[in-house]
Amino acid sequence: MAECNYGDGMYLKVLGCGSAMPKPLHQHSAQMLRLRDKHFLIDCGEGTQMQLLRFGSSWANLHRIFISHMHGDHCLGLPGLLSSMSMSGLDHPVHIYGPAGIDEYVAFILKTFCREDADRIFAHVIDHTQRSVVYEDHSISVTAFPLKHRVATVGYRFDEKPKQRHLNREMADFYGVPMAYFGLIKQGQDYEKEDGTIIKNEMITIAPRAPYSYAYCSDTAYLSSVAEAVKGVDLLYHETTFGAEMISRANETLHSRSVDAARVATEAEVGHLLIGHYSARYSSRAMVQELLQEAQAVFPRTIAAEDGLTLDFQTLREQGL
Amino acid sequence: MAECNYGDGMYLKVLGCGSAMPKPLHQHSAQMLRLRDKHFLIDCGEGTQMQLLRFGSSWANLHRIFISHMHGDHCLGLPGLLSSMSMSGLDHPVHIYGPAGIDEYVAFILKTFCREDADRIFAHVIDHTQRSVVYEDHSISVTAFPLKHRVATVGYRFDEKPKQRHLNREMADFYGVPMAYFGLIKQGQDYEKEDGTIIKNEMITIAPRAPYSYAYCSDTAYLSSVAEAVKGVDLLYHETTFGAEMISRANETLHSRSVDAARVATEAEVGHLLIGHYSARYSSRAMVQELLQEAQAVFPRTIAAEDGLTLDFQTLREQGL
Repeated sequence: MAECNYGDGMYLKVLGCGSAMPKPLHQHSAQMLRLRDKHFLIDCGEGTQMQLLRFGSSWANLHRIFISHMHGDHCLGLPGLLSSMSMSGLDHPVHIYGPAGIDEYVAFILKTFCREDADRIFAHVIDHTQRSVVYEDHSISVTAFPLKHRVATVGYRFDEKPKQRHLNREMADFYGVPMAYFGLIKQGQDYEKEDGTIIKNEMITIAPRAPYSYAYCSDTAYLSSVAEAVKGVDLLYHETTFGAEMISRANETLHSRSVDAARVATEAEVGHLLIGHYSARYSSRAMVQELLQEAQAVFPRTIAAEDGLTLDFQTLREQGL
Repeated sequence: MAECNYGDGMYLKVLGCGSAMPKPLHQHSAQMLRLRDKHFLIDCGEGTQMQLLRFGSSWANLHRIFISHMHGDHCLGLPGLLSSMSMSGLDHPVHIYGPAGIDEYVAFILKTFCREDADRIFAHVIDHTQRSVVYEDHSISVTAFPLKHRVATVGYRFDEKPKQRHLNREMADFYGVPMAYFGLIKQGQDYEKEDGTIIKNEMITIAPRAPYSYAYCSDTAYLSSVAEAVKGVDLLYHETTFGAEMISRANETLHSRSVDAARVATEAEVGHLLIGHYSARYSSRAMVQELLQEAQAVFPRTIAAEDGLTLDFQTLREQGL
């Protein structure tokens, strides 16, 4: 399984963008978010391990899996993926996050299909009623927030942490900054020379790029609090199960329409909107194109998901912020 | 989902012929056996519902599912398939057969993913230690028999029941057989005229074709009792996880090699042998071709399974019995 070297960036790979009934073009929900050497799987519908294989991705560095809700099309790929990871010689812990039910489900999977690795696979139950940071390390924080669906469902927001400033070595030498101070300088401190002169930090450092951010909202009806939760992200994935005219079906099933997704993107002032989770009725590219046009009429920087699509956050920024 | 009209025949469709680690060419185990309007699903690895879709098959008439054993690559497609059947408006009962563990697994699926249809989906636990008829109706009987694997595993043999003889209407009229007797004549009875003359059944009927039979053996090491259980079937599917040289790996994992499968086919005097359940190491058609040649060296009428392959039992008979 060849995997490119992604360097410093953040990348999203759509593994499946269909809804409950899969179609050849649109398999069940799953996405892989990559930040440098870290992989985060978001949802894991049936066939996710095959989609990883199909699109040349790998589970070698997958330590954390985030499940939005306990409907089959979002979590039925877990047992197979965990079994295959286990058979490949799992050498690290795997943490699985999700709303109530995820604990019982993971326990059943471990007991039935992955007994050998039961001590390194952990389920974490998220309170789906409030916004909370569910994972954090030195480079990223992941926040879960409530969505509005027929069962307990959460969205996830991934915020890269601010990076250190880059030292401008030439200027640092020019002002006589000793190497011992470089660490503090990168963290943003000014330098005070022995004669009391202050060398402002920005004179000897270069600003890093702004941190990347991504939010995933599926499944959900339009919910006004979502815009606040996903405010200003570079990329927002918002489910678009239906076209604009399907108001009553969307209301019945607590799903969103193209225009609902675009409304959230507008309210949240996001960089780009990615639509997906298409109903099985939109089974061709031409039909998806119609959903896309409806969303773009409200929020022009909208992209239509397709299975296998990879988005580079740097390219997105260059394209139109 | 277009489905051809299969008429009177028996057909096998291979939906997946890979083993534990799926590959793009070889997905997880599943087969659909069709006898007239009856569909029988045999094993149901992850992605089976997508494979049905991909190969233009349907679950509309699927009433019975036979699971060989509780390893994930043979049963992880069940929850998704049952959910999709349920969402499509399941209007008939579905019976699922398998060794111990199938009951608990199906109960978990129903509770977690198919609550609405829990009253029409039934699990039947098979005693994997002995040969027994597990299902029977007027046209077919299904017999489970022990295999030799790391967990409780059964093979399945499908025997079409003998069909009624066809009335030769011209000859029946010639001998003056009244219509009221036609039912008995088709069942094989002679006709006694009023003057006591006996018209032998074969003079007024035509023999039907011999019943079709199929056997499925996966997963298993070579086991001498299997040949007896599958004696004389038209088609035997026997797992071939490894090539001839992989003796120790086959012994360790309780799987078969190409030559083991061919040995069973020879001993059982079957019509044709179908090999499959290839280890992930045989990921190309050329590699499978080598397994095929090894098996054919022992049992010439061997066919290599591939995902999507459909076999017509009539054609098999015409080809070489």
